[in-house]
Amino acid sequence: MTRMIAIQPLTAQAFAPFGDVLDVAGDPDKLINQGMCGRYHDRAKLDFSDGRAGISLFKAIPRDLPLKLDMVERHPDGSQAFLPLSQEPFLVVVAPDQGGVPGLPLAFRTAPGQGVNYHRGVWHGVLTPLSQPGLFAVVDRIGDGPNLQEHWFKDAILIGP
Amino acid sequence: MTRMIAIQPLTAQAFAPFGDVLDVAGDPDKLINQGMCGRYHDRAKLDFSDGRAGISLFKAIPRDLPLKLDMVERHPDGSQAFLPLSQEPFLVVVAPDQGGVPGLPLAFRTAPGQGVNYHRGVWHGVLTPLSQPGLFAVVDRIGDGPNLQEHWFKDAILIGP
Repeated sequence: MTRMIAIQPLTAQAFAPFGDVLDVAGDPDKLINQGMCGRYHDRAKLDFSDGRAGISLFKAIPRDLPLKLDMVERHPDGSQAFLPLSQEPFLVVVAPDQGGVPGLPLAFRTAPGQGVNYHRGVWHGVLTPLSQPGLFAVVDRIGDGPNLQEHWFKDAILIGP
Repeated sequence: MTRMIAIQPLTAQAFAPFGDVLDVAGDPDKLINQGMCGRYHDRAKLDFSDGRAGISLFKAIPRDLPLKLDMVERHPDGSQAFLPLSQEPFLVVVAPDQGGVPGLPLAFRTAPGQGVNYHRGVWHGVLTPLSQPGLFAVVDRIGDGPNLQEHWFKDAILIGP
């Protein structure tokens, strides 16, 4: 039986068990540059077992909905932030851990200008842009070891619009 | 006498003395996600005297050209990366150090999808979007102390289109 998951809007509250929503909702923490710029300060919990933070760029092929979700992964050694270098929404899939395997996933669609930071060890889908350019800055752990666990679902899950 | 500076396209070579250009020029370092995503790995030299890396968001008011440049600043304790959360080009102003004060600035216009990382201690202009949304992710040092030196020019410099 194919399980189906509906996509919900990304909110900080709904996403809190899995990570941080990076956006400019609310007032800035500080006004800088003679009042011309608001700083929303230190909004992601960067968390690395070892190694260090680095900035990489990801260029991914956009996917169509409904998405057939075969797999989720997690990074036991570090958090991972995705910052879209466009105003295009993208799909964010996460799942709670249930004794070392993922439970039923949740799916979120970002609003323009929202990024996410997956907390260390959180099950999540691979980067899933829904339109071009599929370009993201990624802040994650630079270090040794695979830092990757994959879980392939016995039956694919459909994530629908 | 008002000095005028022409804007040049941002290239990694021209920008090398000041920092890193973050873009997806060339081949990715690694293909991931069953070939659906290219990873351009660890492209910024993050460099902090103390403290740690953090992700903040900046929302800045766009400026018009020609820009009247009154001031440049530098951060003695850490590098600072600007990642545009849109495909809009922005203005990047840097200056060589000449005995503790900035020399003649250089001005660059980014291409869509380009970010920059200012190396620690490099003189640079404040964040200067040229159009909406003026929204950026910033990866810089989270730590104590002001970590800021400003230099106000005796005569403003015009940065022209």
